[in-house]
Amino acid sequence: MRERMRQTVEAAQDTICEAVTAIDNGEFIEDRWEREGGGGGRSRVLQGGSVFEKAGVNTSVVYGTLSEEAAMAMRARRGKELGASREFFATGVSLVFHPRNPWVPTVHANFRYFELGDADAWWFGGGADLTPNFLDEEDARHFHTTLKAACDRHDTSYYPEYKAWCDRYFRIPHRGESRGVGGIFFDDLEGEDAGALHAFVSDCASSFVPAYMPLVERHRDRAFTEAQRKWQLLRRGRYAEFNLVYDRGTLFGLRTAARIESVLMSLPPLARWDYVPAEEQEPEAQRLLAVLREPRDWV
Amino acid sequence: MRERMRQTVEAAQDTICEAVTAIDNGEFIEDRWEREGGGGGRSRVLQGGSVFEKAGVNTSVVYGTLSEEAAMAMRARRGKELGASREFFATGVSLVFHPRNPWVPTVHANFRYFELGDADAWWFGGGADLTPNFLDEEDARHFHTTLKAACDRHDTSYYPEYKAWCDRYFRIPHRGESRGVGGIFFDDLEGEDAGALHAFVSDCASSFVPAYMPLVERHRDRAFTEAQRKWQLLRRGRYAEFNLVYDRGTLFGLRTAARIESVLMSLPPLARWDYVPAEEQEPEAQRLLAVLREPRDWV
Repeated sequence: MRERMRQTVEAAQDTICEAVTAIDNGEFIEDRWEREGGGGGRSRVLQGGSVFEKAGVNTSVVYGTLSEEAAMAMRARRGKELGASREFFATGVSLVFHPRNPWVPTVHANFRYFELGDADAWWFGGGADLTPNFLDEEDARHFHTTLKAACDRHDTSYYPEYKAWCDRYFRIPHRGESRGVGGIFFDDLEGEDAGALHAFVSDCASSFVPAYMPLVERHRDRAFTEAQRKWQLLRRGRYAEFNLVYDRGTLFGLRTAARIESVLMSLPPLARWDYVPAEEQEPEAQRLLAVLREPRDWV
Repeated sequence: MRERMRQTVEAAQDTICEAVTAIDNGEFIEDRWEREGGGGGRSRVLQGGSVFEKAGVNTSVVYGTLSEEAAMAMRARRGKELGASREFFATGVSLVFHPRNPWVPTVHANFRYFELGDADAWWFGGGADLTPNFLDEEDARHFHTTLKAACDRHDTSYYPEYKAWCDRYFRIPHRGESRGVGGIFFDDLEGEDAGALHAFVSDCASSFVPAYMPLVERHRDRAFTEAQRKWQLLRRGRYAEFNLVYDRGTLFGLRTAARIESVLMSLPPLARWDYVPAEEQEPEAQRLLAVLREPRDWV
């Protein structure tokens, strides 16, 4: 499974980066990095493109011995079925796109596989979620419908469960808002049939391009005002708030001193925080906020 | 002491806001807010001024019953001398200035008084620290020297101790950097003579204007390039990282659902995150980073 998932992850990176450069005049810079304790990664970041202000697609294959602290945190989270061994293996692909045009939603996706203690414990995790600056119901429906189709090919209970999990996970309690209009999120996926779970996760990864890219095509050339750009930057501030205060993956990366530039690749190229911004009162903003406050069903 | 400190805090807010509007064409918006469980605050924020892109000076006087969670956190931090009562009283002034010109340093200060359990436990806390985008040794020396003078008038052991505490507190471990060139930081100040401690804290608060404003005067009209502006926004990204990931006051505010707009007033008006920014390699940047990596003595 280690090798199969590594191939899935790296193929997803290639496919997704190709889909981006097919429509953006920018180029991905690739950094290969090595981890002192074992393994390494391949970070690809495009900055200042015509469509994407910043688009990062990272993969990593890391293994070795978890720190006592990280192993304890992992054990506390997963429960007691984990053995005492701190040996681990992890591979995953993670992406965040910050588009230039405020009408194009920000997006995040991540698919990963983890082993702890010589493979007596293993699990998959992942998901994809959409963070628009303005509510476009057709976008949200298309994104969710595409992910649901991938889920349904494997188990019709997946989508409703992982849609709800996504809404719970990407919540900013201090704002009383979700980060965006959601998508799917799952973790700790384990069971009898690792092959079937791998097929499900691969299918989700393959659904990213058809779920998201059509939204980019739809909006990339749409005219926008300076006020709409400002609203986009304010929303990106919220994105940074979620990632720095709550996102489990980000905080794990900061604590374990992984490669910081790769961990924080997700942060927006430009963000703003105004005190009580008047933009929040605009009807357009209010339409979005209503949905962020109370997540809705999109399929 | 409650009333004395409230007066100190509110007088500091007035004096500091006046010093700002004496050199900035902008105006403070004042918001008075009430806390459901008791007390309230007075937030003053100036945005889009000629000198300050964002300057916030907040005061609050809050009291009532701490949540079980907050009381436990407080007790865990302070040790066992605290009684079982969750009654509290807190008053403080907190400020963050984000100047427009990259040569003018960002600054933060905070002075506060806390009582827990019907005043059988009480303490003062506070400090002031400077976050420049470029290293100006004269600025750092002036800022530190002025704060040291305030400390020395009360106890010559204060400055070395609180300077070191500041360096420890404003550390961004995942970057291996301090947030800035420091200043002073102290907490849990208690003892026989509450009056003497109040006098010390008041003196620190009074030193803020003479410690900081001369730096603003020195640099506010200095020419800067677009690259220097970009570097300022990148440094502001680090500021947001510290505040959202590590700052105890901010995280306490987010957890206790205090007034969010006041808690997050400290965040920069505009910030950026680039992947492996080339600007970091500039000699000017390297001079600053050397000092952030290894804090130096300034007096």
